[in-house]
Amino acid sequence: MEVTRRNFKDSLNAVYSAIEEADFLAIDGEFSGISDGPNVSALTNGLDTPEERYTKLKKHSMDFLLFQFGICTFTYDQTKSKYIIKPFNFYIFPKPFNRTSPDIKFICQSSSIDFLASQGFDFNKVFCNGIPYLNQEEEAQLREQTEERRNQHANGVGTPSYISPSSSKGPAHVPEEHKDFINRVIEKVEALFTNSEKTLDLEPCTGFPKGLHVETIETEKKERFIQVSKVDDEERKRREQQKLEKEQEELNDAVGFSRVVHAISKSGKLVVGHNMLLDVMHTIHQFYCPLPEDLQDFKEVTMCVFPRLLDTKLMASTQPFKEMITNTSLAELEKQLKEGPFKSPQVETAEGFPSYDTAQEQLHEAGYDAYITGLCFVSMANYLGSFLTPPKAYISARSKLIEPFFNKLFLMRIIDIPYLNITGPDLQPKRDHVLYVTFPKEWKTSDLYQLFSAFGNIQVSWIDDTSAFVSLSQTDQVQIAMNTSRYAESYRIQTYAEYIQAKQEKEKSGQTPKTWGEDGWVKSHYSSTTSAGFGYPRKRSISPAQGEQAAGDAPITDGWSHYSYPDSAGGKKMKTDGVCPGCCDLSILMVAVPCRDSSESAGLSPIPDDDEEEEEEEEEGGSPEGIDLANNSEGTVTWQQATTRKGQKNKKKKTDGES
Amino acid sequence: MEVTRRNFKDSLNAVYSAIEEADFLAIDGEFSGISDGPNVSALTNGLDTPEERYTKLKKHSMDFLLFQFGICTFTYDQTKSKYIIKPFNFYIFPKPFNRTSPDIKFICQSSSIDFLASQGFDFNKVFCNGIPYLNQEEEAQLREQTEERRNQHANGVGTPSYISPSSSKGPAHVPEEHKDFINRVIEKVEALFTNSEKTLDLEPCTGFPKGLHVETIETEKKERFIQVSKVDDEERKRREQQKLEKEQEELNDAVGFSRVVHAISKSGKLVVGHNMLLDVMHTIHQFYCPLPEDLQDFKEVTMCVFPRLLDTKLMASTQPFKEMITNTSLAELEKQLKEGPFKSPQVETAEGFPSYDTAQEQLHEAGYDAYITGLCFVSMANYLGSFLTPPKAYISARSKLIEPFFNKLFLMRIIDIPYLNITGPDLQPKRDHVLYVTFPKEWKTSDLYQLFSAFGNIQVSWIDDTSAFVSLSQTDQVQIAMNTSRYAESYRIQTYAEYIQAKQEKEKSGQTPKTWGEDGWVKSHYSSTTSAGFGYPRKRSISPAQGEQAAGDAPITDGWSHYSYPDSAGGKKMKTDGVCPGCCDLSILMVAVPCRDSSESAGLSPIPDDDEEEEEEEEEGGSPEGIDLANNSEGTVTWQQATTRKGQKNKKKKTDGES
Repeated sequence: MEVTRRNFKDSLNAVYSAIEEADFLAIDGEFSGISDGPNVSALTNGLDTPEERYTKLKKHSMDFLLFQFGICTFTYDQTKSKYIIKPFNFYIFPKPFNRTSPDIKFICQSSSIDFLASQGFDFNKVFCNGIPYLNQEEEAQLREQTEERRNQHANGVGTPSYISPSSSKGPAHVPEEHKDFINRVIEKVEALFTNSEKTLDLEPCTGFPKGLHVETIETEKKERFIQVSKVDDEERKRREQQKLEKEQEELNDAVGFSRVVHAISKSGKLVVGHNMLLDVMHTIHQFYCPLPEDLQDFKEVTMCVFPRLLDTKLMASTQPFKEMITNTSLAELEKQLKEGPFKSPQVETAEGFPSYDTAQEQLHEAGYDAYITGLCFVSMANYLGSFLTPPKAYISARSKLIEPFFNKLFLMRIIDIPYLNITGPDLQPKRDHVLYVTFPKEWKTSDLYQLFSAFGNIQVSWIDDTSAFVSLSQTDQVQIAMNTSRYAESYRIQTYAEYIQAKQEKEKSGQTPKTWGEDGWVKSHYSSTTSAGFGYPRKRSISPAQGEQAAGDAPITDGWSHYSYPDSAGGKKMKTDGVCPGCCDLSILMVAVPCRDSSESAGLSPIPDDDEEEEEEEEEGGSPEGIDLANNSEGTVTWQQATTRKGQKNKKKKTDGES
Repeated sequence: MEVTRRNFKDSLNAVYSAIEEADFLAIDGEFSGISDGPNVSALTNGLDTPEERYTKLKKHSMDFLLFQFGICTFTYDQTKSKYIIKPFNFYIFPKPFNRTSPDIKFICQSSSIDFLASQGFDFNKVFCNGIPYLNQEEEAQLREQTEERRNQHANGVGTPSYISPSSSKGPAHVPEEHKDFINRVIEKVEALFTNSEKTLDLEPCTGFPKGLHVETIETEKKERFIQVSKVDDEERKRREQQKLEKEQEELNDAVGFSRVVHAISKSGKLVVGHNMLLDVMHTIHQFYCPLPEDLQDFKEVTMCVFPRLLDTKLMASTQPFKEMITNTSLAELEKQLKEGPFKSPQVETAEGFPSYDTAQEQLHEAGYDAYITGLCFVSMANYLGSFLTPPKAYISARSKLIEPFFNKLFLMRIIDIPYLNITGPDLQPKRDHVLYVTFPKEWKTSDLYQLFSAFGNIQVSWIDDTSAFVSLSQTDQVQIAMNTSRYAESYRIQTYAEYIQAKQEKEKSGQTPKTWGEDGWVKSHYSSTTSAGFGYPRKRSISPAQGEQAAGDAPITDGWSHYSYPDSAGGKKMKTDGVCPGCCDLSILMVAVPCRDSSESAGLSPIPDDDEEEEEEEEEGGSPEGIDLANNSEGTVTWQQATTRKGQKNKKKKTDGES
C-alpha cells in the first residue's frame, strides 16, 4: 500500500493493526545518498574497527534523507499454513510544519539520485506528498510551545515574557506619526460594541478588552489578518475547545511518520532488514534523536527503538547458508532461496493490499525490498527447521533457532569483523599480520602488490591517497617486511600495533587530524576499546571441543536446550573484559548445523563475499560497477585480487564515481 | 520550449540561433535551496558590505543546485513593431558522466523544495531527465583524459604510466593458483587465429598481439566483458574512427548545458534578470568555475561570462520607476507595468514555441519567469522613451537610455547600498550613525527599541543572537548613546568605526572567528576597501548643480551626449580612490528623468522597498510570509518598524523558518 501525506491519516489504523498482529516485520529504506566523503573506499576501509565505521557512517551518511520507508508485516496463518503479508511503502519528506519549525537541509548524491531515477523512483511523490516527521525533541518542543501559548491565552495576553533591558516596563514607545492610526483602530474596536456588525477585520495589531474574541485568520493566499468578534461566554468556550482540538490534530500531523516508528518500537516485534545498519541509523537519526557520539550509546538507543533486529545479509553470510549462497545481494539472495534445498515460502497478500510479483522485479521500491527481505528470512528460517528431528517445515519468528542471529548487523567490507553486535561487545580480531604503509600519492594498488610480491597473496585496504593497510597472509612475514623497509625512502611501514599506538598518542595530545583521510579515524573512546586487547584470533578457527561436535554429522535432535545464548535477549548493557563472547552464539550455531561442504575448514565464520562490490552498489543506490578494463590497460594482471580491487584507485583522481 | 536530456541535442541549434538573432535575452534560475546557514537574517544583514554579502552567499548558497534554467530571447521585428520571443525552460541535473567523473553532492532545503512543489514543479523531470553539465576545468580534464587514452592506444598498450615503487619494471607477479587460468586464456586467444570464429568473449584481462581488435563491451545490464575480433587494417581504422567520433559526441553530451551558457557569453548580448545576483553566481559556479574568494575577482569573472547584465529589480527600484512602483517582486512588477503610465509590450511567440499566458500565471517556472522579466524590462525601457522629444514608443536594448542600469545587480536588504557594481567600485556609504550593540541572548528587537526609545525611529539589523547594528536617525545621537551606555552591564555599545577597527585587528592577529554569526563577517580584503574611506554620503542627496537640473522640468531633448558613463562598457578593471563614482551614472539618470513626485526629496536613490520580505520569499522559493500576530501577542506595538521586522527574532530560537 502506497502511503503519502494525502492518505497517511486514513491509513494509520491499518498500519497500527498490521504491526500489532504481525509475527515479524521487514523494513527497508531508500536514501538520497550514501556518502558525502570524498570516496567510498575511505568510508569503508576493510580494517575499520566497529567504532571507526560507526563514526564514519554517522559523519558521512546522516545528512542524506531517508525518503522512502518500506514495511512489510508477516503474520502466520496456521489454518492456511502460510504467511499473510501487508506491504506498506511510505514516502517521507520533512515539510516544515510552520515558520518556526526547523527547515531541514539534506544532501543529495547525484549517483544515488540517478540510480533511483533509473529504477523509476517517483521523486514528485516524495517532495510533493511526502509524510512529515519530527524527532522526539522536536515533538516535545512543539508540544511545549503549544502548551505555553495556550496558558498565555488562558492567563490573558499582554504579559511580556522577555527580559527587558531597562527596569521600567512602561508602555511601548509609539512614534508620533503612528498615533493617529492607533487611535483610529481603538475607535473602530470600541465602536464594534455599539454598532450592528458582528466582526471587524483589522490590520496587524493586538491587545483588546474582554468580551471580544480575537483570531488571526489566514486567507487562501496565505495573507493574514485579525478578526475581532463579539461572543458570549459559551460561544467563546466552544471556539476555544475547537481550537484546542485543531491544534492537537495539527501537532499529531507534524509528528507524522515518527508515529509509525514509535508503533514498531512499542510492539517489540522482530524487525528484519537486509544489510540494515544504515537503515537503522537513519531511522533513529530522523525519527528519534541525533545519533550519539559513542558506539556504545548508539547500541543502547538502538535497543530502545528496535528491541529485536535480524539482518538477512548477515544470516546469509553465516553457516550453514554461507556455503550455499554465492551472492548475498538482496536480489540474488531472493533468487537463490527459491531453489533447492530452500523452499519459496507460501505467502498471501492481505485483502486490500496490492500484491507484489517477485517475477516482475520492483527492486529499490522500499516496500518491495522489505517484502523480499521478509521472504528471504522465512526461507532461511524454515531451512534451519530441516535439521530438526523430525524436520519442521515452518519455523516461527519466536523460535530459538534464529536467536543466534538477533541484533547482529552486517558490517560491509570489514575483512575480519562480520557484524556489529548491538547487544554486546564487538569481535576484536588480532591484526598482527597487518602493516600500515605510507607512500607517495602516485602509488596504486599494483605498486603495493609489486612491493610485497615476495610475500605471496596480500590484501590492500586503502585509507587515503597516501596510506593503506596491507594484510600479509603470514604473521611471521611482518618482521621481514619491517626489516627490508628500514632503509626505504619512498614509503614507510609500521605494524598495526605501532600505528594504533601513534594514533592514540596523537589523540591524547589533542592534535586531532583535520582532513578526511585521517578524520575517519578520529574517535573519542578508541583507546579504551583497543586497550582491552586483541583477544580474537584472526582466523576464527573453532575450538577443539566445538570442532569435534562439528565433525559429527548427526543433526541436532532435541529442543536446543544444551545451547546457551549469552547475549541475545537479556543483558542490554552487558560489559565484558574483552575476549569475544559476542562471537560465541554464532559459532555455536555454525557447529550445531552440519557443514555441507567440509572442504573449507577455516571458513566457518561469516565473511563478506567476493561479490560485495556489486551488492553494495545495488543496495545503496550507486550505479552497478564492473571492472573497467578500458581504464585498466597497464598490462598488470590484477584479477587474482578481486576482493581488494575495490580499494584500487582510479588513475586520475579519487572521486565518488566508484559508488 | 521544454528542454531535457531527451531533446537537448535536437534543440541545441534552435537555442543557438535564438541567442544569435536576439536583441537581448532574459534568464532565470530555480534552485534547490537558498541558505544552508542557520537563518536568513544572518545571511542578509541590512548593513553588510558588498564583500561581506558576496562571501556569505558564496559560503551559504552555492551548495544548492541550480536545477531549472529559463532563457527567453527577445528579437524586435521592425515591420510588426513587436518583439518575437522564444522561451526555453531547461531542466538541469549533474548525472555522472562515467565512473571516474565527479559525483556531485548538492543540498536541498525543505522549505524551498516544498515551495516549488506547491507551485507544481516537476522534480522527476529534473532528476530523471535533467541535462548534465561540466564546468570548464572538468571539461578540460575530460578532454585531456580522452586524448591521453587515444594516444596510449595509438602507441600500443602496456606502457605503465605509474611510478613504480621498485626500479625493476619486470613482469607482474602472477600467483601460482592463477597461472592455469592465464594459460587457458592465452590458448583461447591463439586459437582464434586458426579457428573459424570471428570473435571471442573473454573474462577481464588485457594485452594481445597485433591483428586483433580488442574492445570492452557493455551489456544492457551494465555488465562488461572483453570482445576480441580478427580485423584487417582498413576495418581497424574504420572502427577506430567510429570510436573517436563516438567519444567526441559523448564528450559534448557531458559538457551539456554548459554549451548553452558558453553561447550566451560568446554572443555578448544583454542578459536581463530579476534580482539576479544569485542566478549569476550559480551560473558561474555550476557552468564555469568555482567562485573566487575575492569579490573583485568575481566581478571580473562575471564580466567574462556575462559582458552586459541588467537587473530589472534594481531598475524598478530606481528613479523614475521607484516612485511609481510600490512592490518590486516580479509578479507584482509585471502587473503594475501593465497599467498606465506604462504600456504592455507587444510580443509574439515565435512559431513552434508554446506561448505563455500572463493571465494564467506560471510563476516559478524558470522559462516563464525569464519571459516575464523580459516583458518588465521592455515596459520600463519603453517608458524611458516617453521622456524624449519627440517621445519614442520603442527603446532598443542598445539604447543609451538604459546604459546606466548595466552591470548593477540588486543587493537585497542592504539598507544603504542598493546594488553590486560589477564594472566598478561599490558604493561606500558613511555609517557614522550606526551603533554595534551586544546584549544577552534573550533580547529581542523590542528590547532594542525600548533601549533606544529616546532617539525616535531606529533601524535594527540583527547580526546574530547576541549582537545587532542599530541605526539612529541622527548622527549626533551617537555620542549621547555612547555616553549613556558607559555604565550599562547587560549590553555594550560601540560605534561602527570602532567595530570595524576591532574586527580588522582581530583579522590581522589571525584570530578568525569560527561560528556562523561572526563568520559571515570574515573576509580577506575588507581592510583595503574600508580604508579607502566612507566617502559616500549616507543620504545620497544630489549635488547643487545636479539639483538644479533636476528642478527644471524640461525633458531631455537630445541624444544624451552631455552625459558620461564612466564605467558601463569600458574599464573592466577600473580602480578608483574611494569616492563613489559607481553611483554617478545612476544619479545622472535620476536627474535626467524628472521626478513626478517631488515630495520625497531624499529618495532619489534606489532603496529596497518595505515589502522586501514578501518579495524575497517569492523569488527565492521560501514560503510567503506575513506578520504572525499569533506569535507576537506581547502587547508591543511594532508595526511602525515594518522595514526592520524581518530581523525580529522568534521567541523560541533562531531557525530558518523565517525564509
